[in-house]
Amino acid sequence: MTKVIAVGGVAGGATAASQLRRLDPDIGITIYERYEEISYGSCGMPYHISGEVETRDSLVNMTPEKFKQKNIDVKTCHEVIAVHPHNNTVTVLDKKNNIEFIDSYDYLILSPGGSPRILPVLKDTPQTFSLNKIEDLDDLMAYIETHNISEALVVGSGFIGLEVTENLSERGISVTMLQHDDRIYKNIEADMNGMLYEAMNEHGITLKLNTEITKIDGETAELSNGETINAPLIISGTGISPNTGFLKSSGITLTDKGLIPINKNGQTNFDNIYALGDAAVTRYQHVPGLNMQSALAWPAHRLAHIIANQISGDSSITHEGFLGTNIVQFFDCHIASFGLSEREVADIPHFVVDQQQKNKSGYMKNAAPIRIRIYVDKKSGLILRAAVTGTAGVDKRIDVLAAHTRLGGTAFDLINIEVAYAPPFSSPKDVINMVGYKAIEKAKE
Amino acid sequence: MTKVIAVGGVAGGATAASQLRRLDPDIGITIYERYEEISYGSCGMPYHISGEVETRDSLVNMTPEKFKQKNIDVKTCHEVIAVHPHNNTVTVLDKKNNIEFIDSYDYLILSPGGSPRILPVLKDTPQTFSLNKIEDLDDLMAYIETHNISEALVVGSGFIGLEVTENLSERGISVTMLQHDDRIYKNIEADMNGMLYEAMNEHGITLKLNTEITKIDGETAELSNGETINAPLIISGTGISPNTGFLKSSGITLTDKGLIPINKNGQTNFDNIYALGDAAVTRYQHVPGLNMQSALAWPAHRLAHIIANQISGDSSITHEGFLGTNIVQFFDCHIASFGLSEREVADIPHFVVDQQQKNKSGYMKNAAPIRIRIYVDKKSGLILRAAVTGTAGVDKRIDVLAAHTRLGGTAFDLINIEVAYAPPFSSPKDVINMVGYKAIEKAKE
Repeated sequence: MTKVIAVGGVAGGATAASQLRRLDPDIGITIYERYEEISYGSCGMPYHISGEVETRDSLVNMTPEKFKQKNIDVKTCHEVIAVHPHNNTVTVLDKKNNIEFIDSYDYLILSPGGSPRILPVLKDTPQTFSLNKIEDLDDLMAYIETHNISEALVVGSGFIGLEVTENLSERGISVTMLQHDDRIYKNIEADMNGMLYEAMNEHGITLKLNTEITKIDGETAELSNGETINAPLIISGTGISPNTGFLKSSGITLTDKGLIPINKNGQTNFDNIYALGDAAVTRYQHVPGLNMQSALAWPAHRLAHIIANQISGDSSITHEGFLGTNIVQFFDCHIASFGLSEREVADIPHFVVDQQQKNKSGYMKNAAPIRIRIYVDKKSGLILRAAVTGTAGVDKRIDVLAAHTRLGGTAFDLINIEVAYAPPFSSPKDVINMVGYKAIEKAKE
Repeated sequence: MTKVIAVGGVAGGATAASQLRRLDPDIGITIYERYEEISYGSCGMPYHISGEVETRDSLVNMTPEKFKQKNIDVKTCHEVIAVHPHNNTVTVLDKKNNIEFIDSYDYLILSPGGSPRILPVLKDTPQTFSLNKIEDLDDLMAYIETHNISEALVVGSGFIGLEVTENLSERGISVTMLQHDDRIYKNIEADMNGMLYEAMNEHGITLKLNTEITKIDGETAELSNGETINAPLIISGTGISPNTGFLKSSGITLTDKGLIPINKNGQTNFDNIYALGDAAVTRYQHVPGLNMQSALAWPAHRLAHIIANQISGDSSITHEGFLGTNIVQFFDCHIASFGLSEREVADIPHFVVDQQQKNKSGYMKNAAPIRIRIYVDKKSGLILRAAVTGTAGVDKRIDVLAAHTRLGGTAFDLINIEVAYAPPFSSPKDVINMVGYKAIEKAKE
């Protein structure tokens, strides 16, 4: 019997295994997951803090028992600690019984994910939590309740930092956010993030820029600016590192950041070893030759389908890279982008087009501004990067821009996107169209 | 001096004239508009009834005076009553002074719009209003106020019927809607319109299907079902007919419905005569050889830009037909579609794919169902028609489907549209993607 091993049972591994079972009722599938739980919606975890997600169990899609019914063998608390590609085997540590053993595969799917980077000063402090796995959420929720937490420090201002801040605040916990430098949420342009500061102000979030924790003393934190503040709860949101240490001497190619490069089939440098999820790196769909690490759920789910098809024998289903479409909600602020980072786009000759107008017909009572910036490749007219900010309707505009760009639509051709118009939804020349008209003008300059 | 005459000064004519002036500072431009007002957002008119659009003047984009500043000559209350293409002249009736005169053009832009079809039984009844031009809105608002209207009949259930019903109801007026047959809002599939009935129920709207007015007697209406009901105010929303009677002996080609066919440049059968707006007919962008009459603002604005460029000498800017993307809001119901009508699609070999899932991650508190149906061309895999219903997020899905289809994306390729995912906005496999996965399965059957 052909046998597949998946390393990691959260989004990537669990989804790939499920897809594969749908395609092939007979193939042997084993998932090794180093923690207790599998197959949960990790992106939803911040929303359980506020109660927006009412029960933590609603985040859990599948249990080992449910997988068993599908004839998928799930071993939780089992950590794959080495891969031996030339033997097609893995070394597994059964963490509960502290036993090592060898298992063999025909195909290996690597979905080990990442681990939060915790600042040294916060290591081993009992009140510091990250939000990487569902056990972290359980620990955090228990800590908030047993310690009657009414104030918290959030370190970092990425996806997790913003989402946790909003949800702690919605729960009634007073939040101070610390950012080590002078700019928050670097996924968006510095001159487009003003609404985040406004929202913090409006919701009573204290923001301290250029500030780090220098020392934790019990429930107080000493800061680099000389202040001492209460820190009964600290959320660390300072990024993740790929869990690929176990691959270092395997012969599987890793980047200098420890990421696993994959090709259009989802394959690593070994034909029968695939990778996906936060530890994988692929390329941009719309700009050749540029790596894209997208620790995002959408590409993980897409790759799960591709890899399952590849393993089951349909080599026609591939991916041509991703755009990295992303969005975050912070109270009423919706902030989205896709494509190259600002730093990456600087290396390609381009021009920038900005457009701001209302998200619906301007005469409607609650019409709100929406702002789009596109970076247009001077040679091809393609949108290298798009950034959209506003309230309602940001997700629509980024999705339309992404769908258009993916199929090779240029900035100039945005004028032809036939949006559904009625006054509650857009304008007869939507902001999407107007940025196209402006791009045409700008190209003439 | 080259001279352009535009017939009709609402969306199409006024926008084309403005665009032309931007492109050519010297060309002579005259707009003849048969009523008093020009350049207003007619789609917003229903929303003034409820106060969602606070002032009627906010609907007016431009006045004759403002056009004068742009050196565009606007003659209101001037009706073009004949066109003489072989002389390049028009006959104009100055309605205020009841004087006819001849004017000549190098280019003629026809944007005469349509007139509401009023049922014979309602003709000349003082309480019957349509909502076609802004003067109609003024008359209606005055009538509501002076007659202390607290109940109304709405006849018809198209865009106008639904929007007026919602806004009358929001104003506190009790509405009865009459539909002559057994199905409301035929832009959407009969088995997808249930939410409209629910919303009517919830908001206390009385709906009478298979019911017509047989007689108006003062402020009461006799109905075909034998009932007599109060009818102090009646809104007629039973469609429009193109205002093209004045073209009948001109030699300009008209369809049997009186619509003006145009080519990709916006030209009629005369090279220097263009048409756009509710009286024009073009073709579908994604299905060759099928006429599309789209009395919609988006195509009108798009054609205005194309025609202005064509006249100013840039023949490269054309259109390849439209999808007819449309949407309506009725309380919380959002209902959208594009492409062929159900009747048109029946003539092309196709299969249907349905998908229903939540508009955001299912574990979020206010996640709401969204439903998509696509009609997939068996030969090409293109989406011939798409229908989307739900609440928040319908506009996003139809716009993404439209952007994708316009660039030749197939139903199967929907799986690759990289939507911006975060729990408040979508799922890692959005409904857009899932309908693609289902299309792939269905095609295998």
